[in-house]
Amino acid sequence: MSTIPGKSNAFPPISASTLAELSSIVSETYLLTDETALREHGHDETEDLLYLPEAVVVPANTEEVSAIMRVCFRENIPVTIRGGGSGLAGGALPVQGGLVISMKRFDQILLIDERNFQVTTQPGVITEVLQNTVKEKGLFYPPDPSSRGLSFIGGNISTNAGGPKAVKYGVVKDHVLNLEVVLPNGEVIWTGSNTLKNSTGYNLTQLIVGSEGTLGIVTKIVLKLQPYPTQSLLMLVPFRSAESACAAVAAIFQAGVTPSGLEFMERNAIDWAVRYVGETPVPIREEDAAHLLIEVDGFHLDSLYADCETITSVLAQYDAGEVFFADDDATKTTLWKLRRNVAHAVKRNSIYKEEDTVVPRAELPFLLKKVKETGAQYGFESVCYGHAGDGNLHVNILRGNLSDEDWNVSVPQGIREIFKYVKSVGGTISGEHGIGLVQRQYLDIVFSETEMELMRQIKKVFDPKGILNPNKIV
Amino acid sequence: MSTIPGKSNAFPPISASTLAELSSIVSETYLLTDETALREHGHDETEDLLYLPEAVVVPANTEEVSAIMRVCFRENIPVTIRGGGSGLAGGALPVQGGLVISMKRFDQILLIDERNFQVTTQPGVITEVLQNTVKEKGLFYPPDPSSRGLSFIGGNISTNAGGPKAVKYGVVKDHVLNLEVVLPNGEVIWTGSNTLKNSTGYNLTQLIVGSEGTLGIVTKIVLKLQPYPTQSLLMLVPFRSAESACAAVAAIFQAGVTPSGLEFMERNAIDWAVRYVGETPVPIREEDAAHLLIEVDGFHLDSLYADCETITSVLAQYDAGEVFFADDDATKTTLWKLRRNVAHAVKRNSIYKEEDTVVPRAELPFLLKKVKETGAQYGFESVCYGHAGDGNLHVNILRGNLSDEDWNVSVPQGIREIFKYVKSVGGTISGEHGIGLVQRQYLDIVFSETEMELMRQIKKVFDPKGILNPNKIV
Repeated sequence: MSTIPGKSNAFPPISASTLAELSSIVSETYLLTDETALREHGHDETEDLLYLPEAVVVPANTEEVSAIMRVCFRENIPVTIRGGGSGLAGGALPVQGGLVISMKRFDQILLIDERNFQVTTQPGVITEVLQNTVKEKGLFYPPDPSSRGLSFIGGNISTNAGGPKAVKYGVVKDHVLNLEVVLPNGEVIWTGSNTLKNSTGYNLTQLIVGSEGTLGIVTKIVLKLQPYPTQSLLMLVPFRSAESACAAVAAIFQAGVTPSGLEFMERNAIDWAVRYVGETPVPIREEDAAHLLIEVDGFHLDSLYADCETITSVLAQYDAGEVFFADDDATKTTLWKLRRNVAHAVKRNSIYKEEDTVVPRAELPFLLKKVKETGAQYGFESVCYGHAGDGNLHVNILRGNLSDEDWNVSVPQGIREIFKYVKSVGGTISGEHGIGLVQRQYLDIVFSETEMELMRQIKKVFDPKGILNPNKIV
Repeated sequence: MSTIPGKSNAFPPISASTLAELSSIVSETYLLTDETALREHGHDETEDLLYLPEAVVVPANTEEVSAIMRVCFRENIPVTIRGGGSGLAGGALPVQGGLVISMKRFDQILLIDERNFQVTTQPGVITEVLQNTVKEKGLFYPPDPSSRGLSFIGGNISTNAGGPKAVKYGVVKDHVLNLEVVLPNGEVIWTGSNTLKNSTGYNLTQLIVGSEGTLGIVTKIVLKLQPYPTQSLLMLVPFRSAESACAAVAAIFQAGVTPSGLEFMERNAIDWAVRYVGETPVPIREEDAAHLLIEVDGFHLDSLYADCETITSVLAQYDAGEVFFADDDATKTTLWKLRRNVAHAVKRNSIYKEEDTVVPRAELPFLLKKVKETGAQYGFESVCYGHAGDGNLHVNILRGNLSDEDWNVSVPQGIREIFKYVKSVGGTISGEHGIGLVQRQYLDIVFSETEMELMRQIKKVFDPKGILNPNKIV
């Protein structure tokens, strides 16, 4: 991991008196300036990037965040918000140094409203903890990125995260009702109302969701819940060709079934995941080039069996191999564990660039073909997997033995080509990971200068001094 | 109807040479300045309000809209966009005179993508036409406001419309993927991508949805579709007390069922609707104070019967009368016709102010009680009905024989009280109709000055000269 000092000339260094002022807000314990803390808060899961902040502050509540921002606004200090640190686009990297605000003390679920199917939570709650807690009340918060055991719910909001359930239940943005946000100048707003419908003014809630900590700091969150589905069925389906697997995806929906999960893994992805996890309930056969993991869920088991029959009759038309049904919870858990650990498994094999391509789902075979052709042309290998039901294909480009020159120049050229193919079929360059730092260089492919300028101006409305998460998105 | 000349001193009148220039863009046929046209485009369905524009232009395509806006931007001419004219908040009223752009020639569905469950349409397509056209392909566009036979899909986007299906399928915002928008200076942008997921930059799509024609002019729309549910069951349920009916609503969800429609009508609403429509499949009994209309839909009839059993067992706990099941399509159609015509029926009885309150749904009994108490206090009668499953209660305040003084001063004071109650339980002042002109006076109840200022600044980013739909929302 190569250390890059985060400091630039755009902002002044944090002075000793300012540090003392910040310390007085949160107490000495929660202002960190030691090397270990700075390194820990200088990277996320993005490649091998490291940018050191000058200090880390760990506030306990909205009032402290507001007080911190008033100081930083006055002193022109760049501020980067940090959640669980599982980001893949470098959104939490403090590239201008300055202050990192860690949200880890915002770890309380404030209210589970069982009458209205809502939860009010602080942003530092781990996604999976939130899910499990509301599940105890029979309630369901569907968005579950693979990082859910690490990521904070606030981080999920900042990237508009998705996960395998999005295909049926939507992404994070579809579950956020209302947000408390501290603006860069320290003022506190609420973005909406705690209602399922809202046609009252501009949708500030949806402007904050997915804005990757560049507009404001989310300090309270009201999420919509729903009854937890009591039944689910899961199947793993092998295909002789990866393109057939992708082609089967759209056909399943056309047959009238909406699965609650429809995941694609090409051969390397599942092989490496099996090795990483150390078990598989079904052998991966030599002749299979790819797999689909298909889940249906609901409240009536008979309906789900009928859905599975429809699905298997579709699969038969796409040269699928023998379908493996997960009969019991343990087998289901293992299959999901395989899928959820693909990224970790790839990481163990090689540093990689994560490209979070998304297209209308019937374009998946086209996209996969273009990824492989482009890799051949530019000399890189890739492992592809992802949320095929949403048309969201994660392309992991492996560093392997590539030279610095290849990695830093040639590979980005290839990525640019892939993104152009994505755009040509109505897709875009990030489905759920965000733009952060590393995808900014490709934004010109999907946005015109007019569109970029609108975003820059919106940024300026919220953050006139440009101190919040500088060098991200805009 | 009282004529109010729309002109103010904020903008110069449209000169003869500018009119000639506009005429040269769309041809003489499509620039209207005659009294009949001006009156026709000077009102919508909001109370009895009329504001005359100076001219109406009817462009045929994006290029013409762009050319028109370049002229209006240069000449500082206020521009109001008009869809089907069914708005209830005065969003399409040209309160500053100037130019009305009618979108009625944008009436083409451009592409139904059956592989990806998407439709690309022009904004002037009538909502119901769009729904019926995609239904022929087995596809479903759920948002269906009561005005769907009149309203344009573009108008639905501008107000973030809802309708009875929103309780299960979400409102308009949940179905919009991508928009082509002409900015006030004539530049043309696309807001997003044609994908189910998108974490690429700020969510301009959701900023435009619900912005009531104040930020830009929507000229093309990409909507998400889903398979059309093949089965549905519908029941009408009488209650002795309106509050019991409201209380039953949240209980149905807590029992684990998500209906595809859950509508509330108090006694007057259904009585007047029966008289207006001229038929009812079931007599409305003397002792019933309110009704719920409950629909479940899906693909498996057995599951729906199971859901209905769950629902009826819940209803039994809330003093419900005998449940009437609609067995056949004709009966279902009549029941829905009753519900959809309540607003028209009320209008035939009296001029009314439409308040589009929305609260977390378990707060409905509280809201209904406060509406009636406030009416008693301020001397007005109301008819209440709406999308109870969403907590969205339409409060129709009847003019009846109220004096101008009562109607213009006392009633708004009462409305203000009601909106404060709404806010106090996490609700807001418009669920699906928008703020437009007539609800602006109440925005201070739900937004702080900081929040309002953010919206004003966002408006300025898109529309620096303030020419687009002036005096609306911000």
